[in-house]
Amino acid sequence: MPPAAVAPPMREIFEIRDADGAGRIGELTVPRADVTVETPALLPVINPHLRTVSPATLESEFGAQILITNGYILYQSEEFREEALERGLADIYEFSGAIMTDSGSFQLSEYGEISVTNAEILEFQRDIGSHIGTPIDIPTPPDVSREQAEDDLETTKSRLDAAQSVDVGDMLVNAPIQGSTYPDLRESAAEHAYGTSLDVFPVGAVVPLMNSYRYADMIDVVRAAKRGLGADAPVHLFGAGHPMMFALAVAAGCDLFDSAAYALYARDGRYLTVSGTDHLDDLDYFPCSCPVCTKYTPEFLRSVAEAEREELLARHNLYVSYQELRTIKQAIREGNLFELVERRARGHPAMVDGYRALLDHAAELEREDPVSKGTFFYLSSQSARRPEVLRYHDRLSRLSVPGDRVLFSEGGDNRRFEETWRLLPPFGPVPPALSDSYPLTTERPERLDREAYEAAAEGVSRIVEANPDIEFAIAHWGWPDSALAALPNAVETLALGPESDHPDDS
Amino acid sequence: MPPAAVAPPMREIFEIRDADGAGRIGELTVPRADVTVETPALLPVINPHLRTVSPATLESEFGAQILITNGYILYQSEEFREEALERGLADIYEFSGAIMTDSGSFQLSEYGEISVTNAEILEFQRDIGSHIGTPIDIPTPPDVSREQAEDDLETTKSRLDAAQSVDVGDMLVNAPIQGSTYPDLRESAAEHAYGTSLDVFPVGAVVPLMNSYRYADMIDVVRAAKRGLGADAPVHLFGAGHPMMFALAVAAGCDLFDSAAYALYARDGRYLTVSGTDHLDDLDYFPCSCPVCTKYTPEFLRSVAEAEREELLARHNLYVSYQELRTIKQAIREGNLFELVERRARGHPAMVDGYRALLDHAAELEREDPVSKGTFFYLSSQSARRPEVLRYHDRLSRLSVPGDRVLFSEGGDNRRFEETWRLLPPFGPVPPALSDSYPLTTERPERLDREAYEAAAEGVSRIVEANPDIEFAIAHWGWPDSALAALPNAVETLALGPESDHPDDS
Repeated sequence: MPPAAVAPPMREIFEIRDADGAGRIGELTVPRADVTVETPALLPVINPHLRTVSPATLESEFGAQILITNGYILYQSEEFREEALERGLADIYEFSGAIMTDSGSFQLSEYGEISVTNAEILEFQRDIGSHIGTPIDIPTPPDVSREQAEDDLETTKSRLDAAQSVDVGDMLVNAPIQGSTYPDLRESAAEHAYGTSLDVFPVGAVVPLMNSYRYADMIDVVRAAKRGLGADAPVHLFGAGHPMMFALAVAAGCDLFDSAAYALYARDGRYLTVSGTDHLDDLDYFPCSCPVCTKYTPEFLRSVAEAEREELLARHNLYVSYQELRTIKQAIREGNLFELVERRARGHPAMVDGYRALLDHAAELEREDPVSKGTFFYLSSQSARRPEVLRYHDRLSRLSVPGDRVLFSEGGDNRRFEETWRLLPPFGPVPPALSDSYPLTTERPERLDREAYEAAAEGVSRIVEANPDIEFAIAHWGWPDSALAALPNAVETLALGPESDHPDDS
Repeated sequence: MPPAAVAPPMREIFEIRDADGAGRIGELTVPRADVTVETPALLPVINPHLRTVSPATLESEFGAQILITNGYILYQSEEFREEALERGLADIYEFSGAIMTDSGSFQLSEYGEISVTNAEILEFQRDIGSHIGTPIDIPTPPDVSREQAEDDLETTKSRLDAAQSVDVGDMLVNAPIQGSTYPDLRESAAEHAYGTSLDVFPVGAVVPLMNSYRYADMIDVVRAAKRGLGADAPVHLFGAGHPMMFALAVAAGCDLFDSAAYALYARDGRYLTVSGTDHLDDLDYFPCSCPVCTKYTPEFLRSVAEAEREELLARHNLYVSYQELRTIKQAIREGNLFELVERRARGHPAMVDGYRALLDHAAELEREDPVSKGTFFYLSSQSARRPEVLRYHDRLSRLSVPGDRVLFSEGGDNRRFEETWRLLPPFGPVPPALSDSYPLTTERPERLDREAYEAAAEGVSRIVEANPDIEFAIAHWGWPDSALAALPNAVETLALGPESDHPDDS
């Protein structure tokens, strides 16, 4: 974990249990609820006025450990306000996990004004028994002028500063990170937020990016925020509830998600999957084995009354969302989160852009990535840009090379050279001692793409540059011109034969 | 559908309802069972001696319409033989769907001999009430000598010929296709089988290929067999039971799968997913929402008695297998089976090879592919090789081009040219009239790979070659050198700017 520039307040509420890239399994301690929430976690949004699935059901049927509801709606509600103050949220919702509340910032951004102050809404959240409250930040939309983004951010920062002096008891407090689509503003907003005594860090106002499938921009925003935060900061991707992007967002470093999607989509007859959204009307078969989808057919679901259909769709949407979080946690445990992201990226072309954007930050991810994991799967040209490849290339320039004439070979050795190392795209030269270590135990397709060879050429370059006095040659099976052109001029190349004659690696 | 060279016997038992590439949804009528089986279908293997999940449960809980059991084991069994002859399989198994039986060919290949003749085992299968029986073919393993493959195939062919004259009543009969890893032998075996009066066409002896992850070779074998069969032939990928390759195999033209895997893997503590196999011991979370995985945790499953664990794992394995078949059928209905195969290919590098091998046969797939489908998603460099791209390139050479000077442009028009068409990688030039038609309504990542531009250059080449008297130019945003080099010399190129300045397509 990179050291923060200035020593931040120690955050003991968040502990990281396991990591893969910037993704991690963590434990968020929520003192006021007296519970620990395992992350990545989903916070189903509870609309005080409309309960598609009850909080008690979320807990018993889906294992929900945390949920979110809107403190401002309760504050304004003639129906619920007094009851919330008297009974408290945990009692009303019959929910024993953690309850986060929002502040009305969304309503502020939608309607231009709200009738409560920052201190009032924080105290109200405290008084209704919220476990994690939120100050009123300014959710600045994407693509606004820099001036507006800066002005809004000053307001958000001052609200966070002010929130520190509100008496919130043992309620945790969110420190939202704004800055629109300006990465430097997001980074400075995150640094500021991390410097406060607040606890949880939502990356705000990203919903418009997700709604327009701008996953690459979303990743740039998240990574900018992450650069301003310490590794011990729990990060919430605010408003992100579609399971198709959970794996990508976790790999970028997000820990918390909240989903109104499960209910909103259900209301509209829409069915979530890890690769997109289907409309119930378009489904002839359910691509799912959840208790809803194994019990009913699409045809039957279309025939039932609207309220029942909505509830069943919402339950499916929740099942698939929680399933995806389990899938992500299992991938982190096995060290193959990038492989999962590769699969999910093929759900939509915009997700491919998101994955590519994530790999643009491979050097940052590399710093947090475990040194040894499961088996590295080469699955597409993007795999050539993974942090593990980058790290290996860095390592190559520090390796000691024996002898004066060294051959990197894809096919046996050659007595003209004193030393022969294996040449393994996308990594490059492999000294015998490292052959059995991660990631060089990689599984690769028999047919590799050009990017794999080009990355291997980069590996060769790194070692050649670091050892100017040694003579190097490579022996290759029909490498593409683009890879050969990327080799340093001093490297001799010996063609073993066309790529199609390459013997099986096994 | 391509006409067969010689008019084959009309097969009225198999009707194709919907298709995508070579994948299809079909209805297999099984007269003796008086049922229709929707394909792609999974036939769970019922071991007469060991029942992990009962046939009645397969029917009621998983919706199984067909299963398979081993006729030779029953024939040899002192315990079951008489009962099978007296009661019949449907009664014994309490199963109202279709029941297929195998003949002992597998035992023959494992142990070198079996004590029954071809006619005897077919009659026995008839007598125990099998709905689809199998003659004794010779399952020739991969990579044997050509001589052995040819000799074995002669025997298999003679067994199929002989099977035609056995009195099987209204039992359907399998006509297995052998030929080892020789595509021409597989094709001629398929032509021969299709010329018999037999009914269902298993591609045999592919299990060793799948066990060693040789998915590319598996695809070449399947495509060779498909070339020898008419479109009305139901094709069974014999012994294929892992859901990770169902989508790929369906896209290659397979209709039936049989799975002993669900039970065998469960016995060994293994847990199937659409991207591979996990061992229960390695799971901290279940990446699934099936009734087993939502009710229990991996930890709990490890704690229960062996028989119960085995049954629960088998049920999960069945849930995920049937789910994948529903997912595939839904993808065929929506016309995005290739997108599904792209996702599944990222489960393992060997699956990427399998997908690439499938695209080597894109010209064949193109002939069966519907002209209009959902939205074409460009998801990887493999997408540039899809049948839809190939078809469009063929179409380009037949388009009439107005004017003498035509510009294909990624960014607006130019008055120097009489006509300007949009230039759309990976397809190439798009005449205005076709802009809104499939597949040109494609969704693409903002950042495309070189293969997309190279495919577009191929599209330009096709139209230029077909119109030698017209002057063509392209206006492009920083195309890679490899794509520019692939353009015909006569084409003028106008650079609009570096690719990074490309305005959003939206």
